[in-house]
Amino acid sequence: MAAEPVWSVDPRTGKAREQVAVEASAEEIDQAVRAAHGARAALADRTARAALLRAAADLLDAAAEHVIEAADAETALGPTRLTGELARTTGQLRLFADAVDEGSFLDVRIDRPDQDRTPPWPDLRRMKIPLGVVAVYAASNFPLAFSVPGGDTASALAAGCPVVVKAHPYHPATSELCASLLRRAAAEVGLPEDVVVLVHGFDAGVELIRHPLVAAAGFTGSVEGGRALHDAAAARPVPIPFHGELGSLNPVVVTAAAAEERGADIGAGLAASMTLGEGQFCTKPGFVLAPSGEAGDRLVSALTDAVSETEPGVMLSQRMRGAFLTATYELAILPGVTAPVHPGPGGPYTVNAGFLAIDARTLLEEGYRTPLMECFGPVTMVVRYASREEVTSVLALVPGSLTATLQAAEEDPEAASLLAELAPLAGRVLVNGWPTGVAVAPAQHHGGPYPATTSTSTSVGTTAVERWLRPITYQSTPDHLLPPELRDDNPLGLPRRES
Amino acid sequence: MAAEPVWSVDPRTGKAREQVAVEASAEEIDQAVRAAHGARAALADRTARAALLRAAADLLDAAAEHVIEAADAETALGPTRLTGELARTTGQLRLFADAVDEGSFLDVRIDRPDQDRTPPWPDLRRMKIPLGVVAVYAASNFPLAFSVPGGDTASALAAGCPVVVKAHPYHPATSELCASLLRRAAAEVGLPEDVVVLVHGFDAGVELIRHPLVAAAGFTGSVEGGRALHDAAAARPVPIPFHGELGSLNPVVVTAAAAEERGADIGAGLAASMTLGEGQFCTKPGFVLAPSGEAGDRLVSALTDAVSETEPGVMLSQRMRGAFLTATYELAILPGVTAPVHPGPGGPYTVNAGFLAIDARTLLEEGYRTPLMECFGPVTMVVRYASREEVTSVLALVPGSLTATLQAAEEDPEAASLLAELAPLAGRVLVNGWPTGVAVAPAQHHGGPYPATTSTSTSVGTTAVERWLRPITYQSTPDHLLPPELRDDNPLGLPRRES
Repeated sequence: MAAEPVWSVDPRTGKAREQVAVEASAEEIDQAVRAAHGARAALADRTARAALLRAAADLLDAAAEHVIEAADAETALGPTRLTGELARTTGQLRLFADAVDEGSFLDVRIDRPDQDRTPPWPDLRRMKIPLGVVAVYAASNFPLAFSVPGGDTASALAAGCPVVVKAHPYHPATSELCASLLRRAAAEVGLPEDVVVLVHGFDAGVELIRHPLVAAAGFTGSVEGGRALHDAAAARPVPIPFHGELGSLNPVVVTAAAAEERGADIGAGLAASMTLGEGQFCTKPGFVLAPSGEAGDRLVSALTDAVSETEPGVMLSQRMRGAFLTATYELAILPGVTAPVHPGPGGPYTVNAGFLAIDARTLLEEGYRTPLMECFGPVTMVVRYASREEVTSVLALVPGSLTATLQAAEEDPEAASLLAELAPLAGRVLVNGWPTGVAVAPAQHHGGPYPATTSTSTSVGTTAVERWLRPITYQSTPDHLLPPELRDDNPLGLPRRES
Repeated sequence: MAAEPVWSVDPRTGKAREQVAVEASAEEIDQAVRAAHGARAALADRTARAALLRAAADLLDAAAEHVIEAADAETALGPTRLTGELARTTGQLRLFADAVDEGSFLDVRIDRPDQDRTPPWPDLRRMKIPLGVVAVYAASNFPLAFSVPGGDTASALAAGCPVVVKAHPYHPATSELCASLLRRAAAEVGLPEDVVVLVHGFDAGVELIRHPLVAAAGFTGSVEGGRALHDAAAARPVPIPFHGELGSLNPVVVTAAAAEERGADIGAGLAASMTLGEGQFCTKPGFVLAPSGEAGDRLVSALTDAVSETEPGVMLSQRMRGAFLTATYELAILPGVTAPVHPGPGGPYTVNAGFLAIDARTLLEEGYRTPLMECFGPVTMVVRYASREEVTSVLALVPGSLTATLQAAEEDPEAASLLAELAPLAGRVLVNGWPTGVAVAPAQHHGGPYPATTSTSTSVGTTAVERWLRPITYQSTPDHLLPPELRDDNPLGLPRRES
């Protein structure tokens, strides 16, 4: 059987641009994983890891024009957004390099012997070590920051884990270009190129999660695909950690007082956030509880004006465009759902942004489920509530999300209780902001209750490195046999907790 | 259908002592979980949690005589061991109380706004919050320290999670007694008693892992039972973290130089460790690589002497005794396996300790698998090797373990390379010690590659609390709406990292 070709497709025309590669066979997946596995020992050197991350950032920056052109040709995200995404990606690589140098993620703990404890404490020294080869499943919507050179790869390399990246089929050429730059960075700093290996193909992705030498996986994508890989990871003879980001509704609650104070501003802000990047962010606010009545009407009116003025846009692929049109159609025909601005087709390759509305009472009485599921693309669902109790009843139906947002007034009697209801639903809670735009920072958390993520970890921010490590404790081990990280004289100058 | 009775059985006679309870029905499991779930809000108070843990320790200590008597009657572990186990258990509760007070497990991180970052940093404040109700599956071999008042319960309560404990059928009366003390402790400090709920029954345990309000689980037991529960946790509509400790071979490597230097001492030390508590420790050294030749013979000779002198002992149950006799019989009949001291039946309710031996070459050539599986009870497998290469070949077959031990000489050319081969196999590595005896300490790690544990976490030591928490980040949230842990003036005086 001939290998399936992998095409780079222009979403602006729906036409194939070039054949980039072929899908990997089971044998090629085995070779890819073994190659990465062979690079493990070299990655144990923290100095080399930090150098690799910085060299990768430098090479990506130096190739910026080429990278952005390649990504734009395959994703239609445009040079402005992609310039920002590349800066975010290289900044992320450098942030992890700093984290590797600083070393607190190794979580070194040392307990001195203590005979007075029950049972007695021997000499115990604990640190974290890399798990092994990490499988990274690239995202459709971030060809750089959540793909080949993205956060999963950067954090895995920072942890000392080689990666096998399964390219996303929407940007195979960009993936090849980025992988070649990462591999060149490895060679430049004296590491094996196989610290990063790229593969293509749907079946290849399934094969990858089952490979005995794969020790963990990171995924950003749909609930359907992510759940299948999660289940395969759990069903292995030796189960492995699967850190998947699957889907997120990102609820927003606008209090009555907030709508009163600045309803029009909130409507305009919501329009900007939900249409950003053609609504193709996992943090897009997709479900908005707004009060009924005049103040809420002002919000809806401003939202209507702003969304109506949004130019038609190109989605990441024709398939995604088709899914958006189908899903919004199915939402709009539900009895009780209105479409103040109807989302739908623009030209043959574009879509028009829109939004839908429903009364909370109708939603609750009809027991609709689809308005509570993520719909990828430039659309949101506005749920008009008549009472505080309705907000609580609706929030009880909302699944786990990456974010939850409260729009409150300066002095707002409902703010504290609503925030307490939103916190259990999400990994990041915002007040008077919008959830799109995720800072890469030590205190960031990009994760949330299922289906937002399949684990309690984050895929953005320096703590993302924790996903690829496990602890090991050395007991009563002579100093000269200890890893340098744990030796008495702390030759690497690492932060440590001592008891 | 009448509920199945739960009997307390005396392992010294095989006779039922009394009916303690009945197995919980599906409806009763639902009630138990809902009751625990209702206690969540009260546990949010960290001061109350610390007080609960200390009150529980005090009540257990005050009832020591009664608790030890109850546990001995059901487990035959004897008052000396159980006195130590109770001290360990109450010490563990108090250590977690101290950890709750100190608060570093909340991992508070604060990033100040920074417009110069790409993308810009807003005000981000991150901490960890409890997951919700934790299901705890008690262990057979530690009626206190890994059961109702044990490490899973203590760490879950420390995290702010109510627990539903599924009692182990080998010590239901001890479980009832301990649960009543924990519940009384809750009442004493003004918390709802349902922060700890006890249930019995095999089917009840399966029902429990599937309950929608159960947010995570901790388990200590067999590979068979643990894997079934792991799979059920992963297959839920909303998968949950399952922290299971399933089984461990605990390999030991004795270098040629170590055998030369102190072969007899090592043999005696091994005998003491493998027969401790009738070999019913998850950290029992079950697989020992010793050199062939005279020095190794001295080790085996000392092991033979010491194991031969071991008195027959009562195992935790007749069923466990039966499994031990069957497994050791099946090992002993393998061609090439010898039994220098034959493990087997003592009296009708006891077993004799023993050990088996095989040449590394035979093990490798025959491809035997059973010598590489944990055998619960007072037995170990001594593998005699003729070369350093054979050690590497055998270690490549050893599954993940809680511990791995190196016995090396003072100056030992093989020590460093062997330690490097042992570290990937285990969560705790020891040099010139024995793995039984697990200190409850900040730098402890009691976990290891599968099947030792199903996650990268520990079930012993203060970091065990991390299993029951998830991060949450507050973005751009006015100070008065933040949880006190994250407020600017740090009213709780918590340790925090600021960027």
